[in-house]
Amino acid sequence: MIDSDDDALTTLDLDADRLHEECGVFGVYGHPDAAALTALGLHALQHRGQEAAGIVSRDKHRFHAERRLGLVGDHFSDARVIARLPGRSAIGHNRYSTTGETILRNVQPLFAELDAGGMAVAHNGNLTNALTLRRELVRAGAICQSTSDTEVILHLVAQSRRPRIIDRFVNALREIEGAYALVALTPKKLIGARDPLGIRPLILGELDGCHILTSETCALDIIGAKYVRDIENGEVVIISEDGIQSLKPFPPQRMRPCIFEFVYFARPDSVVQGQSVYEVRKNMGVELARESAPEADVIVPIPDSGVPAAIGFSRESGIPFELGIIRNHYVGRTFIQPTQGVRELGVRMKHSANRSQIAGKRIVLVDDSLVRGTTSLKIVKMMRDAGAKEVHFRLACPPITHSDFYGIDTPEREKLLAATHTLEEMRQFIGADSLAFLSVDGLYRAMGYEGRDKNLPEFTDHCFTGDYPTPLTDLAGETPRQLSLIAEAS
Amino acid sequence: MIDSDDDALTTLDLDADRLHEECGVFGVYGHPDAAALTALGLHALQHRGQEAAGIVSRDKHRFHAERRLGLVGDHFSDARVIARLPGRSAIGHNRYSTTGETILRNVQPLFAELDAGGMAVAHNGNLTNALTLRRELVRAGAICQSTSDTEVILHLVAQSRRPRIIDRFVNALREIEGAYALVALTPKKLIGARDPLGIRPLILGELDGCHILTSETCALDIIGAKYVRDIENGEVVIISEDGIQSLKPFPPQRMRPCIFEFVYFARPDSVVQGQSVYEVRKNMGVELARESAPEADVIVPIPDSGVPAAIGFSRESGIPFELGIIRNHYVGRTFIQPTQGVRELGVRMKHSANRSQIAGKRIVLVDDSLVRGTTSLKIVKMMRDAGAKEVHFRLACPPITHSDFYGIDTPEREKLLAATHTLEEMRQFIGADSLAFLSVDGLYRAMGYEGRDKNLPEFTDHCFTGDYPTPLTDLAGETPRQLSLIAEAS
Amino acid sequence: MIDSDDDALTTLDLDADRLHEECGVFGVYGHPDAAALTALGLHALQHRGQEAAGIVSRDKHRFHAERRLGLVGDHFSDARVIARLPGRSAIGHNRYSTTGETILRNVQPLFAELDAGGMAVAHNGNLTNALTLRRELVRAGAICQSTSDTEVILHLVAQSRRPRIIDRFVNALREIEGAYALVALTPKKLIGARDPLGIRPLILGELDGCHILTSETCALDIIGAKYVRDIENGEVVIISEDGIQSLKPFPPQRMRPCIFEFVYFARPDSVVQGQSVYEVRKNMGVELARESAPEADVIVPIPDSGVPAAIGFSRESGIPFELGIIRNHYVGRTFIQPTQGVRELGVRMKHSANRSQIAGKRIVLVDDSLVRGTTSLKIVKMMRDAGAKEVHFRLACPPITHSDFYGIDTPEREKLLAATHTLEEMRQFIGADSLAFLSVDGLYRAMGYEGRDKNLPEFTDHCFTGDYPTPLTDLAGETPRQLSLIAEAS
Amino acid sequence: MIDSDDDALTTLDLDADRLHEECGVFGVYGHPDAAALTALGLHALQHRGQEAAGIVSRDKHRFHAERRLGLVGDHFSDARVIARLPGRSAIGHNRYSTTGETILRNVQPLFAELDAGGMAVAHNGNLTNALTLRRELVRAGAICQSTSDTEVILHLVAQSRRPRIIDRFVNALREIEGAYALVALTPKKLIGARDPLGIRPLILGELDGCHILTSETCALDIIGAKYVRDIENGEVVIISEDGIQSLKPFPPQRMRPCIFEFVYFARPDSVVQGQSVYEVRKNMGVELARESAPEADVIVPIPDSGVPAAIGFSRESGIPFELGIIRNHYVGRTFIQPTQGVRELGVRMKHSANRSQIAGKRIVLVDDSLVRGTTSLKIVKMMRDAGAKEVHFRLACPPITHSDFYGIDTPEREKLLAATHTLEEMRQFIGADSLAFLSVDGLYRAMGYEGRDKNLPEFTDHCFTGDYPTPLTDLAGETPRQLSLIAEAS
Repeated sequence: MIDSDDDALTTLDLDADRLHEECGVFGVYGHPDAAALTALGLHALQHRGQEAAGIVSRDKHRFHAERRLGLVGDHFSDARVIARLPGRSAIGHNRYSTTGETILRNVQPLFAELDAGGMAVAHNGNLTNALTLRRELVRAGAICQSTSDTEVILHLVAQSRRPRIIDRFVNALREIEGAYALVALTPKKLIGARDPLGIRPLILGELDGCHILTSETCALDIIGAKYVRDIENGEVVIISEDGIQSLKPFPPQRMRPCIFEFVYFARPDSVVQGQSVYEVRKNMGVELARESAPEADVIVPIPDSGVPAAIGFSRESGIPFELGIIRNHYVGRTFIQPTQGVRELGVRMKHSANRSQIAGKRIVLVDDSLVRGTTSLKIVKMMRDAGAKEVHFRLACPPITHSDFYGIDTPEREKLLAATHTLEEMRQFIGADSLAFLSVDGLYRAMGYEGRDKNLPEFTDHCFTGDYPTPLTDLAGETPRQLSLIAEAS
Repeated sequence: MIDSDDDALTTLDLDADRLHEECGVFGVYGHPDAAALTALGLHALQHRGQEAAGIVSRDKHRFHAERRLGLVGDHFSDARVIARLPGRSAIGHNRYSTTGETILRNVQPLFAELDAGGMAVAHNGNLTNALTLRRELVRAGAICQSTSDTEVILHLVAQSRRPRIIDRFVNALREIEGAYALVALTPKKLIGARDPLGIRPLILGELDGCHILTSETCALDIIGAKYVRDIENGEVVIISEDGIQSLKPFPPQRMRPCIFEFVYFARPDSVVQGQSVYEVRKNMGVELARESAPEADVIVPIPDSGVPAAIGFSRESGIPFELGIIRNHYVGRTFIQPTQGVRELGVRMKHSANRSQIAGKRIVLVDDSLVRGTTSLKIVKMMRDAGAKEVHFRLACPPITHSDFYGIDTPEREKLLAATHTLEEMRQFIGADSLAFLSVDGLYRAMGYEGRDKNLPEFTDHCFTGDYPTPLTDLAGETPRQLSLIAEAS
Repeated sequence: MIDSDDDALTTLDLDADRLHEECGVFGVYGHPDAAALTALGLHALQHRGQEAAGIVSRDKHRFHAERRLGLVGDHFSDARVIARLPGRSAIGHNRYSTTGETILRNVQPLFAELDAGGMAVAHNGNLTNALTLRRELVRAGAICQSTSDTEVILHLVAQSRRPRIIDRFVNALREIEGAYALVALTPKKLIGARDPLGIRPLILGELDGCHILTSETCALDIIGAKYVRDIENGEVVIISEDGIQSLKPFPPQRMRPCIFEFVYFARPDSVVQGQSVYEVRKNMGVELARESAPEADVIVPIPDSGVPAAIGFSRESGIPFELGIIRNHYVGRTFIQPTQGVRELGVRMKHSANRSQIAGKRIVLVDDSLVRGTTSLKIVKMMRDAGAKEVHFRLACPPITHSDFYGIDTPEREKLLAATHTLEEMRQFIGADSLAFLSVDGLYRAMGYEGRDKNLPEFTDHCFTGDYPTPLTDLAGETPRQLSLIAEAS
Repeated sequence: MIDSDDDALTTLDLDADRLHEECGVFGVYGHPDAAALTALGLHALQHRGQEAAGIVSRDKHRFHAERRLGLVGDHFSDARVIARLPGRSAIGHNRYSTTGETILRNVQPLFAELDAGGMAVAHNGNLTNALTLRRELVRAGAICQSTSDTEVILHLVAQSRRPRIIDRFVNALREIEGAYALVALTPKKLIGARDPLGIRPLILGELDGCHILTSETCALDIIGAKYVRDIENGEVVIISEDGIQSLKPFPPQRMRPCIFEFVYFARPDSVVQGQSVYEVRKNMGVELARESAPEADVIVPIPDSGVPAAIGFSRESGIPFELGIIRNHYVGRTFIQPTQGVRELGVRMKHSANRSQIAGKRIVLVDDSLVRGTTSLKIVKMMRDAGAKEVHFRLACPPITHSDFYGIDTPEREKLLAATHTLEEMRQFIGADSLAFLSVDGLYRAMGYEGRDKNLPEFTDHCFTGDYPTPLTDLAGETPRQLSLIAEAS
């Protein structure tokens, strides 16, 4: 195959060098179409995890589960699958694996039979003391079937000595550290929980008088549900036949949601913490243009995630916005795959230069983030091969200098270009005529603040600043990242 | 499944009501990676046909064929498939079925063993006398294995009494009517042919000194090949070890390429007949704004094909361009399917309103064409549900009032909204506050002309004008469209 | 895998070295369950071909076809497949490929649209002048889509100038040579034909007043149909609403059916030419015991085809019959596969020695035939490894010294052990203490004759005698066996 | 489909009304081809369970697992699967589900990570207090991921407070009741255990100096391994680098192996407890003939399991043995399926009458057992339809009057024909001219005893006698058989 030339610019994958979120969650209580609504909600959240999906429903008598590797639309659009998920309550999960192998037994929601009845849990986030807890559990005689940190939560619930299931659940939450947005289903309740800092998102919606918990508003929009409010940081909500009840089992803390939801993860049509993601991204482009607009003929967005910032940049700078890179929509099923080998193989033929807008022009490429820089250099070369006179690269977020441990799949720190290179070195690496990033203060301005408040920053932003807001217990220990002693392919 | 409500606006498919092209073709002569290049070329041409794909290669001893239902990337990205296609020459084909069922035996290229050696043919277009010819062939004892009109060409070649294969091929061309761009492979030659009016496109490219024939320049770009020239109307080119030779077996006629390649089919980064498709589409938006720009707050393109015209419209009208409709990129394999039933089932959850850009605003929706109007009314309703104050609908092409018989999959005439409704009736049907189409003269102005020359129009434009440039022999006869007496599912 | 040791006796495949028939046919006229009956009939005939199966049905308006690679039970037990085959008449075919690649377009029944209406044909046998005819047809402008000799018959029908379809069919039969049992379906008729010598079998049955044509009586038994009579050699029967009509278009000849149907191919519960196959095989064992019973302790049949002869041998010789070799019934789908590679891979673990019946004993192995001898030597070694004191090998048919050209998949002559080795050399090759074959006269005695009548032999028996009953036209010419110039995998 | 007539005798499944064993186990220690040997061993044991199979191997660093639904040969004949199972030790399991749904998470071997290292377990048998133990474990905070009773053993091991893994394992064995043959793999040991009465079989073999544990000798024969001895009742063997060590952790009891291994389950070429299964079955036929041989013309075995007894019956009675029923070997993959629906659908067309041996004759049908009698009545009718003058039915085992709880899949007691009908009622039910069973004493005589010793019976024979040799704890409690609250399809 001609693809063996890894530098062939006409066949590059602009998504290969982005960050990846691991999960989306959805739960609904008391609706006759619970499983179908969950499937649609998961489909709207597909950008948060493409590797696997699962739904657990509950009818009067028992729980029902369907879990599949692959896209929601590939499996849960089948009416027979939905028919195997009866009941008026359901929770669902999209998975992108940060921890644990890609095997079916890791696909969430996970389920445990408890003395007081069963419980299913779906989790977005990452626990920073999961390995430490897991080691303790195994020592105490627990059997771990998956390699997922979600199972740790279930074991903590199972081993709690409190009689009520909700007390057991709160007990378990008090032992875990890190970032999480959880939805859990018991025979009579739908439970939601958000970590004490509210790092991962969780919102409350309503459809036909039924409550919904999910990661983003776009999962409400797809089914015509109303947005009610964001779940607060450290809040546990219990939805049952008696309505909704809220607990605050943690000491009060100021919320610090993850700023990357705005920069990259959330869908542009979602509203996060009260702000339109699309508007915020346009603002990032505006701020970026104010900080570093070059003289140029045309603004070219890196599709598709660079488009809103490029519109903002164009409007602020007055330089015309053009689709200088065309995306091929037909790429089969190979879009995102867990192994590097598969990525290289089939994923390359996705974008091409729109020569008529590039040749002989000074262009400004606008992208939302830069991780390793490996695709950025290919795209700069693609622009030059298409005849660009000058290529200026602008990033609508600050340099990513630190790894994440809260559920974002970042490379090891030494592979982050900005962690090991100066700005000029980065410019040379990607081969642009100029390179500029949005400043951290510019990012906060795009969010509506004066700048970053060093003492009380409004967001979790360690990737740009190194300021981790929770202890990193597992990292401190000598525990290997992969504890499991068994390997299984599928 | 909740999808049973067919009017649910949050779950509509903007591509369900567009026209569909039937084919893309590609051929290369004398290159060691002939099959791999063909696979990449077909992938770049995937927008021209998603139902099936095939490649036939030729090595010193024999022909090799691989034909598959589904996308190019799903099958021909597999190195083992390419390895089964040895040889330095190959032709390939993407199929969207206008004639004939979706079964493997209809997938092109088709092949026939001839007395003088075998011949494989791939065809983009539609013959307007295929059924008439087919009936005559069957009467004479020919056995038709497929229901494709391409097989008719092969039979005409097989039955010609001329000794040289190229003379047989030219003989066959003289019997067929309609639109075609053909690539054919014989043991020692690659042949290309374009119909006497040049309705369907065919271009000549070059890579590493080897000649390439294909439908669009984007198939050259993906492999880094150079564009040489368009094949002329009525031209037959013969590529062999002795280089390239050109025949003109028809009486000279003025070229009339299909204008729909510019309006909808060709990829925006392709250059057709010397013009950038992207630029032409932006111009259509500019002309449309000149003719009918309303007072409004925001221009919203129908993704993705309405984007270039919306950029032009925004620039000419001064109204800001915003992504008011967001496309969900994760839709599994169900994007385009041959039966209506399958379309309804799995294809719906593709777009959503970006409420922050719509609510409380006067919006202008810009689309490239309107066929039945069934999705347009859904999108207008989606905009109103998202809170739009006014919804103005603008089409960057004239009303489609006539069916096509040259390879575009148009509905029967009575199902074309513009064929049976006045402008005001159409506005009411789709529920917009105002509706306007680009004029036919405006369309020609966007192409660089003063307007349409009624006596000598530069393009085949019967869909807008009813001016069919060739006889429609089959239509005149009483032959049923589907002649085949055998049904087979796969 | 441990299987790489090709000589491992505990993992051998006793069916790897047998002859293979190529086809079974079935047709029914005027029954409401035509396709389902055909599927059941083909299932009963599965032993005649396991590679592919197909059914064509006819309702009032058109033909319907379903063709599949694999076993009948794997595909045609699906009610949805049967539902796609409406109509009151149907024909079907099981394929074992002697000519042509294993690709879907070679799977029968084949179909052609004719001027007078369509015709589907299913064929058991082999034409000895197919390649010669095919070359002439291609020269005359015919296009061959398959590499099957059945297509030649269809072309001859299509090109005949006679107005009535039955006359065209008879015309075609007059041009072909070799062995055939054909069933054909036209819009209003079911046609059967048997070659002038009656080499391949074809019988007439009846169910609920409807006529059935098929290869063996077991296909009647499975659906509870009655056997009516064997179709005569050189007879053409036409079944229509007017009942059944018989033609005899050839000069009268004495019948010479293939003796291998009795020796190996037909199912033991079938009655062929009025004789029970099971009884005949027992008689072969009786004759064999009369000719060459050794002193021994136990008779061990090679399962399963050696069992009837072993019972006869045991009864005649008085030596007890025991299951000394046990068949493992669980071998997945890998039983018979077209390539040698696949055979080696997964097919081996099928039989094991029943040590308690072998150890310390003098055993007589009874098998129905010996082709290459490669599995016979393995089985002798398996017996010795299990502790046999003496191993005597007895074959219930004469030495196979000549290849077949009438539809039996025999190896090239030089690979037939008996064609190149003396009896003593064969004994040494397989490592037995003694070896004996049934004599040709013994074989005829088992059939109820005095012996073989050299001047007017009652059966086609060239494999044992070299006496080919028809011209071998293709063999005389220089035509390569594989004419097709195109290769396609599936 | 014509199959809707459930009584159609030509399409019946003789295996639909037999008892089913649940499992076969295999383990090997210290061999370079450990996984491949295990795959071959499981293939030889395929008759003990066809629903799923799994292998766990151990190399220096970790465990590796592959588990699949379907036959061993369908999945583990693939070299790539074996390559994913590196290491010199492995255990494997064939499953027929008596407890727990057919889902991948129930497929054995099961695995648990323990504080002292991991442990994988494969189990043949059934625990009679598993549900009681499971309820206690869940109350104590354990999470059960499967619905298999094997997981209970793993939890007991995990929760034991003993430091050494072997002591934990023995502790666990002391808590369980019922029948079991276990093989377990730890990082450095292969462990085998057989229940205190030795109800389920487990034997020790040897290949190239390496120890093997498995269910039957046929699994040794397939790989050329030597039989060493049967594991004793209540024995635990530990195989490690230091050789083999034997523990006897239970109070001494006399062995009582399950007599059904001889009657039906074990392969005829296996040697169980020192006796050839084939010989024992022939003896059962001999004893049966002594007890109840009628005047008749022919002995017809029900294939394949009735054959050895029929040979014995024929020899003792002097009535000739003939294959009066022919098995069709081509039945696709549908042979045994877990749901009744699937069984009915595709499994029917398996046997046919060999009319030439039946018509006009007095026949004796010999079968190995009678459960519900539903297929027996079909086969009697099939014989009569084929023209039998008299049909005498003989069973080579006593009437089955009691259900099993030790790993044999028996129907509820009220569905056992012999539990609710007199001999004469049974004869009328199946429609035979006479009916007789082997007596219990006759069964013991066939095993080499004088008869059954009521005080100290040598075998577990409750199915014939109601004499259950262990407490049935779960049955006494009110626990529902299916405890799991979650349902999942695959």
